[in-house]
Parts: sequence; C-alpha cells; structure tokens
Amino acid sequence: MKKRNLKTLSSLCALLLCATFAAWSQTPPPAPTFSKELRDQLQAVRDAALTSDYAWHQLEHLTENIGPRPSGSPQAQAAAEYVAAEMRKLGLEVHLEPAQVSHWIRGEEKAQLVEYPGQAPQTTQRIVLATISGSSATPAEGITADVVVVHNFDELTALGREKVAGKIVLFNVPYDERKAVAGMAFEAYGEAVVYRGRGAKAVAELGGIASLIRSVGGADYRLPHTGYSAPAGIPAAALAAEDAELVDHLAAQGHVRMHLTLTPQKLPDVTGYNVVADLKGSEHPEQIVVVSGHLDSWDLGRGAIDDGAGVVISMATAEILQRLHIRPRRTLRVIAWMDEENGGGGNQAYAKTHAGELANHIAAIESDAGAGHPLGFYMKMPPAAFTALQPLHDILRPVGSTVFRSAEHSPGSDIEPLVEAGIPGIGIIQDGRKYFDYHHTAADTLDKVDPHDLRENAAAMAVMALTLTNSNEALPRQ
Amino acid sequence: MKKRNLKTLSSLCALLLCATFAAWSQTPPPAPTFSKELRDQLQAVRDAALTSDYAWHQLEHLTENIGPRPSGSPQAQAAAEYVAAEMRKLGLEVHLEPAQVSHWIRGEEKAQLVEYPGQAPQTTQRIVLATISGSSATPAEGITADVVVVHNFDELTALGREKVAGKIVLFNVPYDERKAVAGMAFEAYGEAVVYRGRGAKAVAELGGIASLIRSVGGADYRLPHTGYSAPAGIPAAALAAEDAELVDHLAAQGHVRMHLTLTPQKLPDVTGYNVVADLKGSEHPEQIVVVSGHLDSWDLGRGAIDDGAGVVISMATAEILQRLHIRPRRTLRVIAWMDEENGGGGNQAYAKTHAGELANHIAAIESDAGAGHPLGFYMKMPPAAFTALQPLHDILRPVGSTVFRSAEHSPGSDIEPLVEAGIPGIGIIQDGRKYFDYHHTAADTLDKVDPHDLRENAAAMAVMALTLTNSNEALPRQ
Repeated sequence: MKKRNLKTLSSLCALLLCATFAAWSQTPPPAPTFSKELRDQLQAVRDAALTSDYAWHQLEHLTENIGPRPSGSPQAQAAAEYVAAEMRKLGLEVHLEPAQVSHWIRGEEKAQLVEYPGQAPQTTQRIVLATISGSSATPAEGITADVVVVHNFDELTALGREKVAGKIVLFNVPYDERKAVAGMAFEAYGEAVVYRGRGAKAVAELGGIASLIRSVGGADYRLPHTGYSAPAGIPAAALAAEDAELVDHLAAQGHVRMHLTLTPQKLPDVTGYNVVADLKGSEHPEQIVVVSGHLDSWDLGRGAIDDGAGVVISMATAEILQRLHIRPRRTLRVIAWMDEENGGGGNQAYAKTHAGELANHIAAIESDAGAGHPLGFYMKMPPAAFTALQPLHDILRPVGSTVFRSAEHSPGSDIEPLVEAGIPGIGIIQDGRKYFDYHHTAADTLDKVDPHDLRENAAAMAVMALTLTNSNEALPRQ
Repeated sequence: MKKRNLKTLSSLCALLLCATFAAWSQTPPPAPTFSKELRDQLQAVRDAALTSDYAWHQLEHLTENIGPRPSGSPQAQAAAEYVAAEMRKLGLEVHLEPAQVSHWIRGEEKAQLVEYPGQAPQTTQRIVLATISGSSATPAEGITADVVVVHNFDELTALGREKVAGKIVLFNVPYDERKAVAGMAFEAYGEAVVYRGRGAKAVAELGGIASLIRSVGGADYRLPHTGYSAPAGIPAAALAAEDAELVDHLAAQGHVRMHLTLTPQKLPDVTGYNVVADLKGSEHPEQIVVVSGHLDSWDLGRGAIDDGAGVVISMATAEILQRLHIRPRRTLRVIAWMDEENGGGGNQAYAKTHAGELANHIAAIESDAGAGHPLGFYMKMPPAAFTALQPLHDILRPVGSTVFRSAEHSPGSDIEPLVEAGIPGIGIIQDGRKYFDYHHTAADTLDKVDPHDLRENAAAMAVMALTLTNSNEALPRQ
C-alpha cells in the first residue's frame, strides 16, 4: 500500500472501526486461536530463550570488547561487522546496507562558576556537564558570561531579549522521578526533554550566548546525560542535576558568572551501515517480519541498555529458531540499526532502499527501552491485528509479558518510517523505572542489565516474532 | 586525670565492674532518673531542634556558597572563618586553633585501555578513576603497562614478583552492597577499604609500578570514590566499579594494557585551623562537653554528608541553647575539626594544645557518619556511664534515637585522641544504608541530605549534649 492512499482510506476505516466496535459492544466476536503446531513452537522458543545465555554473551562482546559505539566511530563500524559475522555464522543471509550517518565528536567539556554569592577568595566551583549534540563550539579558551536561570519557556519569554542577550541561560527543569518510580518514566522524560530539544533555539532567538539544561534523567550521582538537540548556533550542554540545583540556588541569591568550554565537532556525515540479516521464510519468503534494535550508542557509556540489549535480543530470536530447527514460514529479518541517537540516518536509508517491498513488511518490532523485565508490548496496529495477537497471552504469561497496549505513535524511532507507511509496529514494554537513571550517561554499562531480565526480553521478542512469521494469516494491516 | 594514671586504675575498675555486673545479675540497681528540670529542658531542646532550619541553612552555606573544603585549600580557610563568625554571632567564645594540616592537590587523572581482547581497530576505552591520597605522580605524559587483576592479598602474593614487577595491579574487591542494605554498611566498608589503605604498599613491595583498587562504596553510577591511602612510592587510584569489572572481565580473556596519567601533588603541610567555640558553663565552666564534626572534605564533592552535616548539627546545639536561654552548667564546646580526611592534623593539634585540660573533658561527641535518620548512639564509655544515660530513651523516643550501642573503639576519628585518654566518646548512629554510595565522591552534595533527617540529627546531638552538660553528676569515666 502506498502512502498517498492512506489518507483516502482513513475515513472509511474510521467508519468501519466504529461499526466494528459498536458490533463488539453487542456480540463479542469469536476469540482467535493459534494452531497446536504454532503453540508448541512458541512454547519451545519461549523456554529456549529463558534458558539461553546467547543474548548475554553477545551483549558482553558489544559493550565490553567493542565498547561505546557512536555513529561514525570505528567502534560502530566494528560492531556492524561483528553482528554481520555472527548472523552469518547462524546461516542467515546478511547485508551491510549503507546509510549516511552523523559523525560527531564530543571534544572538551568543562565549566566553572567564577563569581557567585558567598564565594571563598581565590576559588571557583566546578560544574559537571555533558555537551549535547546540537552544540556549537566555544573558542578553545572558553567563554565567560553571567548566568540566568529559568524553569520553563514562559519564564524565558518573560525575561525577554534585554535580560537574555549576552547571557548563558540555564533551564532547570527536573525529570520527575516520582512519575518514574510510579511506572511513568517516559511521561517524565517527555515533559523534560523538550528543553534539550528546543531550549537552545529559544535562547539563541533572544540573543543568549549559550544554553544549558538540567540533565534529563533520574538518579542523583552527579552524572550528566547527553543526547540529541537541535542545532541553534550556540553552545549547549546538560548539567548534572546537582549542578543545575547549585546554579539555581546561587542565582537566586545574586550574581552568578560562569566560564564555559565546549569544543564539539560536527563532522561531515559518513557512510555507516545497518546490518540486515534474513532467515528466509519457507512459504512466503517475500513477506518480512522485522526484529530490531539500534547498534549505535552515545559515546559516554558503553551502550548496554541503550541499545545493545535491543540488538542482542533480536539476534537471539534468529539463534533460537536456528538452534531449534524451526523454519519461519515468512522471512525473519534481524536489523541492527545505525545512528538512531543522532539523526536516524540508518532508518531513513532503510525506508528508501526497501521502499519497493514495504507492502510485504508484515510487521516491525523494535526494542529500544532498555533491558528491564518485559511487561508486554506497545502495538501500533489496527484493532483486528491487535485482536489476532490475543492468544499470545497464554504463551507469555510465564514470562510476565501480558500487557498489550495500543500505541498512538510508532513504538520505536527506527521503525517509525515503516509504521508511517502503515506497517504494524511493535515495541516491548520494559520495566522502565530505572531506565532514565542510566540513559545517555557514562553509567550505561553491562552491569545495568540483569541476565534474567535479558532472557525474558529475548523470550518476548522471539515469541512475538515467531507468531508473526508462522501464523496462518498474515497480521491484518490498515 | 592524667593518662599515666589510667592503666593503674584499669585493673581495679575491671574488678569493680565485674562485681557490679555480678550484683546486677541478682538484683537490678535502681533505674537512674533525670530531674524534672533537666527533662523539661531536654524536651524543649528536642522540640526546638525538630522545628528549626538553622542547621540546614548553615549546611547550604558550607556546601553551596563555599563548596568543597579540602584541607589546605582557600575554601577550608573560608569555612573555618565562617563557622567562627557564626559562633561569635551566637555569643560563644571562639578560637581558631592552629594545626599543621595536609595540603594535597589532585591534578590530572585519566586512564585508557590501549590493548585488550576484541578491541576495535584504532580505538581505546576510557577508564573512570580518582587518584587516592598516597599516590605518587606519573610523568605528565603518563605510563603504559600491562594490567594484572587480583581479588585479595593472597592472590597478589601468589603471583609473586615475577608476575607483578613492571605491571599495574588492580584489586577488584567489591564493597558488599548486600551488607549495606541490611544495615551493615560500615562492616562492608571495613572489609574493602584495606585495599585502599595498604594495597599500593603490597604492590610496590613486589615491584608493581601502579596500584589500582575498585572504589570502596556502593551505587553503580560510574562514580569513583577517592580517599586516604598510605604512600607507597607508586601511583594509586580507585576505579569506578564498572571500570574495575571491565578490566577484570577483559583480563580474564587475555592481555590488557593501560595508559595511566595521575599527577597529584603532595605539598608541604600548612597551618589550618580547628574552630573551637565555647558556651561557658554556669557552674563548672572548667568541665567541657565537646560536640563536633569535621569541616574539611574531599575535593570531588561539596562535603555535605561527609561531614558538613556533623559540623552544622554541632553548631545547632549551641544555637538552640542560646535561643531557648538554657545556660549549660558545664561548658559546651563546639569543635569544627580540620583535616580529618587526609591526616588528622586537626585532632592531633587539639589533643596537644589541650593536654592539660583533658581530665576536665566530660565527654566528646562527633557526628561523622552522614546525615541519615539518627537511630541512636555508639558510646565508648564504662558501663556506669552507659547506665547513667538510659533515661535519655524516653526523651529520644519521638526522634527514633533509642539504640544505645557500646563501641569497642572511638566512635569518631577526630575524638580518638580524647577517647584514648579515657574520655567517654559518643557518635551518632545514622542510617548508613546509602552513606557509602556518596562517600568521598563528586555526588556528596547538599541534596543528599534530607532536611527532616538533619533536624532529627540536630535533636539527637543537642539532647545528648545538654544531658552531659546539665546532669547533676558528671558522666562517670574510667
């Protein structure tokens, strides 16, 4: 189905769906079922995943032997070649598919408060921060300017050009940890991350000379969180929560002046690679079910929860099927995406390269919310597809992955172009209460992944993927 | 009482105590009681502390306006002058008492793994670490050497000179977080900290060229913990837990080589100051009760839990008595010690300066275990003194500070010379489950202190101190 047809169909679909729902409210349709063969296969795959250390060993290699894998780096290249070789070892048909991807180098990042109320003679205070990706560089010797602190865009607007021009602006907007511990980490993230995305532009428009945010994430260990930001022609960085609080507190008492040095380099895009590995379908090799995670990571940590975990549980799906000699009826496609973090070059290239076969993409799964216990799935798909997957509850009950939630948007950023083309999209709902404590920090390391949780994730991914490749009917789509 | 008399008396005391215990086992002695006047005073002081933000505001100033206060730094000097001025404001008699204290500057600290199994071409891996105080400096350009990993002193000994000479040795000995969450944080610390104290010496003796430890502390946020170590003529540092695990994991697979740069400077000792502030006793001004914490901190954080909190709750004791117009019968002496962290110059100078009046020191309290909820007290004192304090239970029950534990050693390192001279020593037992997550790290900042917990600590300190200054009988001593 081509994209331009989608809108034409949407009104009709809406009508049909309303009718369907109305019908449901009177007479429930018969519950869908899986064949005994499929159920047996799913149980075997689930149990194999729950007792396998394949994903863990792959994650060890990606995070500890290869290490941080920022797009454009030798480590990202080595990781792509490694995943390709591992998939070939399993007998998959593998392509390294080129994509223009970002190439960004952090450089130096440091700051000190050089004037502030109550300052001891001849002293400064160190400010812990991390450059964010849209930052311009300061001169090598840094810049020195007064700091103004705001807590939302309205306060910035109220200050106006007169009070912002020539200043360093800090947005001290906390990530709401209370939401996170209550299971609403992504809501908390969404509320705060807008200042990382758009803060620098707003500051630049009023003549501010640098934009600082409070790191978007939880935990209180003086740990800054990096991430993507829209370039605005001025330096931009994220302070550790403790340092944002310090600056805010001191600025409330009086005059605060900062010396700031950030020397990131935005280099020309380079050719990077998505790893695309197919386990060909026995009956419908042209029909494709994608399992995926992104291989690139930020540079500060080692990319364990974001998103080595997503890659290795996708690899594990192929490994389990091969080990159990379960041939998928449709093609299982493992994708390790490149450059999710800093531009999405990998997923854009895939959508372009595979434009001709998107109609044959049955569904796309991406895991990119960590490696916490999998509670179930976010699913962006029509109600009929949602319903067709209900028998999975019984299979996944022992894993604890029975929450099926309808998603309003793509449940993964790399599969977004596919979802926008009408392909059902699925993301795993991981226990995310601690995800943003480590997300985009130096502490995103192997030890943050619990081996048992990782096995559960591999089970959830493999069971969902096998359902999509081996059910009698392809998943309904819009 | 002079120290040389103590031993003569000790055998006699032991006999008397045995007799006392024997008597107790038959007929319990009458429970000690406090006068109504003292009980009323204690309740008033307790309630005033529980509703006061004095300690909090002092802690804000020390940690945020002054900041890190390493011994020998301008901040340490500014902090001493600040505390002295604040105590003078309250009407206390204040002296800045000179002490020869350490002067240590961290310098540069960085490390990379330059060779390791599975390494991607043209890449290294960053190792996060913090220099520890006994470290020698590497050349400015660093050193490069193979790394060997051990997990205890026996493994090091077994390796012998042949396998250690010319190498960098890593002791990967974890702080046992399971003990910490179960309330045994200091036991966990004690087991691991010996490698910080003595590791470098053991390595140097076998010809090793640098000694690394795993940071002694909990939490997993890529956060190194600094601290004191005995100088051994070689560079020495503490790796973040994640980095110790990485090196250990890679070294188990094959050859690991590290480039290490540490450029600390151990400068000549300088004159620093203990702040000694007296609220003179109305009846026995010559009898002294010490309340104290240490004003110096490590340089990485801002010295909130270690030990700004101890200083400000000591200051609060004086503030509450003055505010409530409660004149102590004995002298209340507030001490803010200098250089607890890196040599103890402050407490040594005090013991020397005040040698002539130690016999008149009734008791010494130090708070140096953070600002967690106060559960009670460690007390190094004879059983009769222990017993005399039992009526405090009723006063402290609303605070939750009713655990009185006999201490085998001095319950605070600055009061150790006093305790060794026979003076009863008291430390507050704080909830320490998270103390070593932040201890000696960059994350020891104001936000780690809960204002309510701090008020409770001020209440516990003030109630204990007032009991000691105003009870009819001075606390029995050995």
